[in-house]
Amino acid sequence: MEAKKNRLVVQKYGGTSVGTVERIQEVANRVIRYRNRGDSVVVVLSAMSGETNKLVGLINEINPNGSAREKDVVLSTGEQVTIGLLSLALEAKGCEARSYTGTQARVITDNAYSKARISEIDGSKIKEDLNLGKVVVVAGFQGVDAEGNITTLGRGGSDTTAVALAVALDADECQIYTDVDGVYTTDPRMVPEATHIPKLALEEMLEMASQGSKVLQIRAVEFAYKYNMPIRVLSSFDDGDDGKSTLVTREEDIMEEVLVRGVAFNRDEAQLTITGVPDQPGVAHKILGPISDANIEVDMIVQNIGTDGATDFTFTVHRNELEQAKNILAETGKSLGAKNWSSDDKIAKISIIGGGMRSHAGVATQMFEALAKENINIQLISTSEIKVSVVIDEKYLELAVRSLHEAFDLHEA
Amino acid sequence: MEAKKNRLVVQKYGGTSVGTVERIQEVANRVIRYRNRGDSVVVVLSAMSGETNKLVGLINEINPNGSAREKDVVLSTGEQVTIGLLSLALEAKGCEARSYTGTQARVITDNAYSKARISEIDGSKIKEDLNLGKVVVVAGFQGVDAEGNITTLGRGGSDTTAVALAVALDADECQIYTDVDGVYTTDPRMVPEATHIPKLALEEMLEMASQGSKVLQIRAVEFAYKYNMPIRVLSSFDDGDDGKSTLVTREEDIMEEVLVRGVAFNRDEAQLTITGVPDQPGVAHKILGPISDANIEVDMIVQNIGTDGATDFTFTVHRNELEQAKNILAETGKSLGAKNWSSDDKIAKISIIGGGMRSHAGVATQMFEALAKENINIQLISTSEIKVSVVIDEKYLELAVRSLHEAFDLHEA
Repeated sequence: MEAKKNRLVVQKYGGTSVGTVERIQEVANRVIRYRNRGDSVVVVLSAMSGETNKLVGLINEINPNGSAREKDVVLSTGEQVTIGLLSLALEAKGCEARSYTGTQARVITDNAYSKARISEIDGSKIKEDLNLGKVVVVAGFQGVDAEGNITTLGRGGSDTTAVALAVALDADECQIYTDVDGVYTTDPRMVPEATHIPKLALEEMLEMASQGSKVLQIRAVEFAYKYNMPIRVLSSFDDGDDGKSTLVTREEDIMEEVLVRGVAFNRDEAQLTITGVPDQPGVAHKILGPISDANIEVDMIVQNIGTDGATDFTFTVHRNELEQAKNILAETGKSLGAKNWSSDDKIAKISIIGGGMRSHAGVATQMFEALAKENINIQLISTSEIKVSVVIDEKYLELAVRSLHEAFDLHEA
Repeated sequence: MEAKKNRLVVQKYGGTSVGTVERIQEVANRVIRYRNRGDSVVVVLSAMSGETNKLVGLINEINPNGSAREKDVVLSTGEQVTIGLLSLALEAKGCEARSYTGTQARVITDNAYSKARISEIDGSKIKEDLNLGKVVVVAGFQGVDAEGNITTLGRGGSDTTAVALAVALDADECQIYTDVDGVYTTDPRMVPEATHIPKLALEEMLEMASQGSKVLQIRAVEFAYKYNMPIRVLSSFDDGDDGKSTLVTREEDIMEEVLVRGVAFNRDEAQLTITGVPDQPGVAHKILGPISDANIEVDMIVQNIGTDGATDFTFTVHRNELEQAKNILAETGKSLGAKNWSSDDKIAKISIIGGGMRSHAGVATQMFEALAKENINIQLISTSEIKVSVVIDEKYLELAVRSLHEAFDLHEA
């Protein structure tokens, strides 16, 4: 890390990084190391690991169908505890600190409780404290709406808080501390030969996150992409500062460096198919309209070329919403006079991602070839400028990820 | 309870009353019973019992000497959890509810973190919700200063929140739910024959609270006395509404009803004595000045008539502050050339309290006589218009309380 003076860094620590008193002390030590080299530091914290689940347990015992407003009031206490505790830990080590709840940090959101979106952050008070030499410790995951109601941003929202704060404060870098030391070519738990990626384009990270990489929250990456904020992913378990990290920036030249940056996957989706529907304008809308009216998010959509005036239509949704989607599709099927409708939740989606794809043809073909060699059948295909995704039978997931990882030369040298 | 229409009641529930999910459900049931008979209800809650101690434990592990501001940020989360949970419980039972943190309820305090004083409550938003037919659930024990910092009012502060809110909203009654069904002539755990008091003057309650009765927080009673807010003490363990309660009001006629209302006591004090100090103007100030400069609160002060130009001086402080007070007194003793100084923490203070004393002589004499009959030596005496307090050897406390309780005909008929 360069020793530039007067850098402002925003550091976000997740639940396991503040899961115990000892881990909180270690976070304090790291913050002080940055302070001592002249950086200004804003820290964004999650709740202690386990705490949010405990609160969710209490809520579900009392009223799982209660208003999201009141749930957010309960859930937002987790981060409020950690910001106070870290500030106390910093004070104990002689470092002035000041905590901010979402309300105090003026993290203004809409009023979509439990999944609120940040509309604005007024960083003026935080800047005053930074100018006084204090470390500022902000509760992640939470904000306040225009009427003063407490809102939460949804799971993983602390990443978004961190990036949004970094943007609002015009920080030099947003550091996301987690339990891994950066982004890998694929999940090392599945493929031990996965390679660490030291530098990555925000656009690539965006695709990795949306295609299943859990390292960064997708909304946080979207925010960083939109406002051109560099993100660095680091491990809070590395004690020194010479550990590995992944820097995610918008620099265009990174993009072209390699053909395929990594292999992402997820098992969270299920697919629904409707066959023998009239192949005429508006049919896609007739099928998907009711689904999106029910607030079910659709990921992949594939329509086959119609024969005999009829066509087949397949799309994927999150597994949690499969039952609801099935019921809606059955209604649609009946009203359209479709031949058949069915669903499958034993699927997995695998994606290869890389900025280099833009200027290279044949990457998709190479992917299909690698899968064919292992006799893995492809059920759906979807492509974008810098990624190719396929849906396969869930039971071949691991084999497919390993094969693709090797086929694209991502194995560690 | 009379069935007057459109009554507004503020109900405060302590930690044991919301200690489990089941207890929270019971609170919801009681609130709904009041709603169903046409009352508007504002609920003030403490943290679930044990929760505050857990948070204090975390704080002490990290930094017991940290800033009170950050401690308050951590501690105030306990009530925030319960207000959300009770609101969810009310919703589950079909009753619209809305929670308010101290910040949201605009409970404005000074910035004396950990022992803040309420300066003002802006109840306009709460009134709006009440007018919409909602139950309003407010976090006790916490407020916000003019700069938006979270403050806490100190242990037992929820009582104060409740009374202050009742005053701000012009409520008809402030109900304090606890684990006993009202105020007794003395602590029933010490004297099983203690009698329940159905009606009590605020002034008497004020003396009872300051002399050791733990049923109500003294600051809450002060507030109620100042603003003439009736307080009703009830048990949250009574399921119906026909249970006993104690109504504490400012009605003057209650005061004169009985000679002695009750016997209060405490074992929290220690006494310090300095002998052979020059009997001259200003000596009391020279002795107590340094004590109060150290923020040590002095309760009883007794000075004997001087002989040979010297006098003896005794005062009591809280036992927690005895060590510090001893050191200060030793310094003073040396500088004044006193003959001796000593301390005793094996003492107890007993007080008899009653508005009727004002118009009857001889109550103190009757008290001394009862104690003499049991051969209990009185070390210090202090009187006010409606109370007589004595300090005795701690080991005679129980005997003294029983004797006085009987001597003043307080035993249950």
